[in-house]
Amino acid sequence: MFGIKKKGAAGAEEEAAEKTAAKQQAEAAPAKQQAEAAEEERRAFEAYKKEKKLEELHRLIGMIDHTLLRQTATKEEVRKLCKEAAEYGFHSVCVQPVYVSACYSYLKNAPAVKIACVVGFPMGENKTETKVFETKRAVADGANEIDLVICLSAVKNGNYGYVKREVKKVVKAAKGRPVKAILETSLLTREEMRKAAAAAQGGGAAFLKTSTGYFGGGATVEDVEALRKLAGGQCGVKASGGIRTAEDVRRLAAAGATRIGTSAGCAIAEELKKQS
Amino acid sequence: MFGIKKKGAAGAEEEAAEKTAAKQQAEAAPAKQQAEAAEEERRAFEAYKKEKKLEELHRLIGMIDHTLLRQTATKEEVRKLCKEAAEYGFHSVCVQPVYVSACYSYLKNAPAVKIACVVGFPMGENKTETKVFETKRAVADGANEIDLVICLSAVKNGNYGYVKREVKKVVKAAKGRPVKAILETSLLTREEMRKAAAAAQGGGAAFLKTSTGYFGGGATVEDVEALRKLAGGQCGVKASGGIRTAEDVRRLAAAGATRIGTSAGCAIAEELKKQS
Repeated sequence: MFGIKKKGAAGAEEEAAEKTAAKQQAEAAPAKQQAEAAEEERRAFEAYKKEKKLEELHRLIGMIDHTLLRQTATKEEVRKLCKEAAEYGFHSVCVQPVYVSACYSYLKNAPAVKIACVVGFPMGENKTETKVFETKRAVADGANEIDLVICLSAVKNGNYGYVKREVKKVVKAAKGRPVKAILETSLLTREEMRKAAAAAQGGGAAFLKTSTGYFGGGATVEDVEALRKLAGGQCGVKASGGIRTAEDVRRLAAAGATRIGTSAGCAIAEELKKQS
Repeated sequence: MFGIKKKGAAGAEEEAAEKTAAKQQAEAAPAKQQAEAAEEERRAFEAYKKEKKLEELHRLIGMIDHTLLRQTATKEEVRKLCKEAAEYGFHSVCVQPVYVSACYSYLKNAPAVKIACVVGFPMGENKTETKVFETKRAVADGANEIDLVICLSAVKNGNYGYVKREVKKVVKAAKGRPVKAILETSLLTREEMRKAAAAAQGGGAAFLKTSTGYFGGGATVEDVEALRKLAGGQCGVKASGGIRTAEDVRRLAAAGATRIGTSAGCAIAEELKKQS
């Protein structure tokens, strides 16, 4: 009590100051907690964003058919292709018929990487029987997917029944493996593209694919959007031809592509990683 | 007699004049004959030159494989191709497998025009079995000649035994019909061209052919000269890819080409005719 009294006027002042400090402390404690909670939430959000970005990165990289179709490609280059596909986590390697069995052996320890084989590539003007024969050989050699060039001359002749029957026979020869019908969109009118897409889906194609990469302009956002609209619910869309950058991949994926064919897979993956 | 005497001095002058005229006539007669003979020879020489030019014209036109390999070629275009080949006297029509049987029917009344079918076109990266299958179908459809793209990756892998075995199997499947081995010279080094040419000839190719027309620079005088040197006595050389003018044809024929593949056959034939 004396203590209090001793303070007198000065004591009253001190008391007031103490009270203020206590009040400030009382007020500061929840503010600090709040700040900490906010910081934690921000960090969690950052982690979430990072995780989403990584998910997106893996989704985009996992959409890529790592492609090497040059007729001058050596065994060593194909071996490298397979190694890269396993390391980066690409969906598949996409190769010429002569290299399917080599890929099968190179990918023995990377069963997640599929082998896509082109058939009737790149002009599609082989007879149906030959395409069927080539598909059967590819399957026997270990191909998991078939990238078939449709008969463009049949489209130009207005013979969509031929296109449908051919796709159907190749789908049968593929024994359950997905067949991607390459339409070579840059050589078709909108009307031809629409009818060819319908024929390919009628024949059982699992994907509508834009281009071989050897004729015309390759994949465009417009073509991919059009194919996405034409493709039924279960049918995928593969964009291919001239795809060189991460930005290309993002744009085409946004336009509705569910698979990307490119021979620039590694550079694109590195670019995507930097952006993640 | 009186007539002579009556002439007198004037008569003597007349006589002299007559003698001179007779002499002149006597001299002129062989001169005229000579001029006539010379004129005749000139005409004969002109006719000879014209005949030789026409022979050369027909030889050059008869070397042409009238070619239509675009994947967008319609039936109508192929029908026109056959008509033109018969009209101009081209050696053959050169078409995709899907169009061989149509050509067979279009050319029923023009048996002199051969049908050449491409196999493994244009990249050559199909399996040997597939190329053999495609050849058999082409022969069954009425093909008289086979234009086979060799396996370029086998060349790049240094596996010339593969190239030789493949050509041999296709030659066997062609049942006596000439097989032209397309080397795609613009993608090969001189060393690779030399070895590939030897492998193709070892396999029984009837022609060494420069190019598909879809990759690299097409036929060059240098490549044709090189192939001519590499080709054995019985082996032909077909120049193809980028041949557009009569001058191109003359240059390549002079360089040693025995066959010319071009999709500009009609324009070239018209140009050659004008020059004849």
